[in-house]
Amino acid sequence: MKTDCVVPGKTRLGWIGVGVMGASMCGHLISAGFEVSVHNRTRSKAATLLARGARWVDSPKRAAEQSDVVFSIVGYPDDVRSVMLGPDGVLAGSRPDMIVVDMTTSRPSLAVEIAEAAARQGVASLDAPVSGGDVGAREAKLSIMIGGDRAAMDALQPCWRAMGTTIVHQGGPGAGQHAKLVNQILIAGNMIGLCEALLYGYRSGLDLPTVLKSVVSGAAGSWSLSNLGPRIIANRFEPGFFVEHFVKDMGIALNEAQRLGLCLPGLALAHQLYMAVQAQGHGRDGTQALELALARMSGVDWRNRRS
Amino acid sequence: MKTDCVVPGKTRLGWIGVGVMGASMCGHLISAGFEVSVHNRTRSKAATLLARGARWVDSPKRAAEQSDVVFSIVGYPDDVRSVMLGPDGVLAGSRPDMIVVDMTTSRPSLAVEIAEAAARQGVASLDAPVSGGDVGAREAKLSIMIGGDRAAMDALQPCWRAMGTTIVHQGGPGAGQHAKLVNQILIAGNMIGLCEALLYGYRSGLDLPTVLKSVVSGAAGSWSLSNLGPRIIANRFEPGFFVEHFVKDMGIALNEAQRLGLCLPGLALAHQLYMAVQAQGHGRDGTQALELALARMSGVDWRNRRS
Repeated sequence: MKTDCVVPGKTRLGWIGVGVMGASMCGHLISAGFEVSVHNRTRSKAATLLARGARWVDSPKRAAEQSDVVFSIVGYPDDVRSVMLGPDGVLAGSRPDMIVVDMTTSRPSLAVEIAEAAARQGVASLDAPVSGGDVGAREAKLSIMIGGDRAAMDALQPCWRAMGTTIVHQGGPGAGQHAKLVNQILIAGNMIGLCEALLYGYRSGLDLPTVLKSVVSGAAGSWSLSNLGPRIIANRFEPGFFVEHFVKDMGIALNEAQRLGLCLPGLALAHQLYMAVQAQGHGRDGTQALELALARMSGVDWRNRRS
Repeated sequence: MKTDCVVPGKTRLGWIGVGVMGASMCGHLISAGFEVSVHNRTRSKAATLLARGARWVDSPKRAAEQSDVVFSIVGYPDDVRSVMLGPDGVLAGSRPDMIVVDMTTSRPSLAVEIAEAAARQGVASLDAPVSGGDVGAREAKLSIMIGGDRAAMDALQPCWRAMGTTIVHQGGPGAGQHAKLVNQILIAGNMIGLCEALLYGYRSGLDLPTVLKSVVSGAAGSWSLSNLGPRIIANRFEPGFFVEHFVKDMGIALNEAQRLGLCLPGLALAHQLYMAVQAQGHGRDGTQALELALARMSGVDWRNRRS
């Protein structure tokens, strides 16, 4: 299995987790011609995939029993642990020469633990978190950061290609998670700069769309500025990427950084500020809602600002 | 003057300040066919421009006496004050219907003060700081952010076009400076995220060029990541943009923010971290030298890291 490439119509896939990301990603595998067994905590969310020919299974264990490769993308590290290592989990139903892939953004140390448990059963395990958000998932343009056995990764190329455009092997077990945390640390800094800059621009009396024209394409330019700047100015705070998931990711990164003996004051500040965003009721808004909490710190009601 | 457009070969220009930025920018005006009188604190730095036909003048005042439009781009707000408002300054030598333009990144309140002093003499004043760095100046691709009288700005279009590609009127006196500070606040956040992310990536055992492949084109992407990330990995810390000038710009932004009653914790953190960069002897290195100071906080000797 590990050295053979997966083949649509022959290789059987399992898929655990059909949230905003997972539903789109699993749909692309069905479109590519794979037979897929699906499980999700809330069955109703799988309806669209089932209507497209996916088969429902009652647990991650059952998904493993009926598949050659099982993917998961769920919410939090505790969910990953339960899905992969629990009594009804994937490894409880696995056979030698299977491949299991966790695509959740999760703890690197948990990815290592899963890989070790899998190896004891002759199963290959990959951590393969993604970036690109809901739009990247929908358009099959994700960046997929992969840790674990290189041969297992290579065997899954038809699956990666169905979901993403940037497919990079980052190293051994956990390296995919570390790379994703690098991605989140970059975004944490960018978001602080973006939201503080817009607050400053507004309070100094500038016209914000006009300021964007001056700064968007130069040394201050970023994906966040181009894509989230206009949404913030238009008071559009829907996700995108949930605040509560970003808080989780930064928490994982801070824990890992502490384990590594690293002082990361910007990440710590971003984590605290996003705790405020969440505390103010914006956990299910997009990460650009940082603007609301930051403005409130200075007594500015951003949504109702005079323009 | 204000409503007529400047004309190469007819309109006489003055130029104060021929540092890294000013020398390139003034050179473009000479290339465009303008007659230029040049002054600089250190005369020797003007040699190349003088060889190309610029005329040397002994003071900003003399530059004004021999010009219709005078530009300045110097180091610090105190220099701007001296060049524009001092006894040997531009306004001491100005005549009604002249235009004076300060392109230094400086205090918005000083831009307002200069505009008021100029108006009392019938002179139009613009603040027009730029972004794009040494490369943007050399390649005439600057973003120029302009505050002050719109008609005066329009009259200078042939000059702006010779130096930049993004020319935007941001509002009344000081608005150009406010827009530039927005630009610097964006960069401050980006740089913290960039340097912390690379430090994390290194200490977590990743191969940094490989990580860049995964993160450079997605939601974590930025000009800083694409342009400064590879330099940091290659231990190249030459400027680019001087640390000591960035410290100045952030100090101005923090003062303005305090005046406006704004809490900007990310900017304050960036300012403090860059004070450390400067204190460690990197004031004349590029802003990417933040990586060195950040790594040192965690006991990592970045330049001599094992790879």
